[in-house]
Amino acid sequence: MKDTDLQKLEEGIRDVQDFPKPGILFKDITPVLSDGNLFRLAIDGFIETAREEKVSKIIGIDARGFIFGAAVADRLGIGFVPIRKKGKLPWQCEAIAYKLEYGEAEVEVHRDAIAPGEKVMMDEDLLATGGTAAAALELVQKLGGDVICATFLIELEFLDGRKNLPDDVRVESLLTY
Amino acid sequence: MKDTDLQKLEEGIRDVQDFPKPGILFKDITPVLSDGNLFRLAIDGFIETAREEKVSKIIGIDARGFIFGAAVADRLGIGFVPIRKKGKLPWQCEAIAYKLEYGEAEVEVHRDAIAPGEKVMMDEDLLATGGTAAAALELVQKLGGDVICATFLIELEFLDGRKNLPDDVRVESLLTY
Repeated sequence: MKDTDLQKLEEGIRDVQDFPKPGILFKDITPVLSDGNLFRLAIDGFIETAREEKVSKIIGIDARGFIFGAAVADRLGIGFVPIRKKGKLPWQCEAIAYKLEYGEAEVEVHRDAIAPGEKVMMDEDLLATGGTAAAALELVQKLGGDVICATFLIELEFLDGRKNLPDDVRVESLLTY
Repeated sequence: MKDTDLQKLEEGIRDVQDFPKPGILFKDITPVLSDGNLFRLAIDGFIETAREEKVSKIIGIDARGFIFGAAVADRLGIGFVPIRKKGKLPWQCEAIAYKLEYGEAEVEVHRDAIAPGEKVMMDEDLLATGGTAAAALELVQKLGGDVICATFLIELEFLDGRKNLPDDVRVESLLTY
């Protein structure tokens, strides 16, 4: 993407102090979503990598990942697979548990959502510690899918989430902090 | 939409017995999402109404509504506004409480998400009792937005959810049961 486009996107991100708890500076992406030009620009950024890697399926994690993943899948005319918190998907699932700061969480995917050998991309709003993203990619591998790339609107580099993602996955972030 | 296209969409819906609880026949839309042709066809259906009504903003409710709303907004080059459960949005919100079968829930929207007079469309997967949808539309009105239309992939007609939506809102459903 052009630097001027990235700058426009960055100007659309709103800092919210003390969310979700005191001391955290939250990067609010909703001003980017609600501006038609900025939203399209963000999806353009995701599409660049998707086209280069010729992916055939997009995954997104409940809930903000749905926003980017669905738009990218629609533009490319390929399928979108929701990864959800435990108990939300109605049919037969594969599940992965992963550690949170306090306690544990579990994400699920439908067993028939990805065919063996499919080239899969993950589209997400934020790469923080990478715990949820890593679990989602592991789910894809459980189904036999080939995880090619993961693209994030924002990467919080100081949390070093990349190190939790598999080495052979291409990781791209439009904005880094 | 053409009848043959609607039939293809209907064939993509999977019935899941006893989800989320015994006695409920759940309409699983994930096979439509994960098939690139069917997903695009579904978004085509939403776009028809959006173009006719010349809407300028799309809302979608956490989480499945994000999937349809985001793709429609991206195609039209207009903004997408997420409506979320209480406590998920980081900035200043308007909130509406509404009744569930047991108890109460609350949905929120950012105060600056919709400008007064904007022509707003809601895109959702399912119209059931219409409680959450009605609350979301009320939120838009609180912000001064003009709710023009609401489009659903599936409408469960026997639950008569339409009667809970404002009379002056155009309601369209691609598939009805």
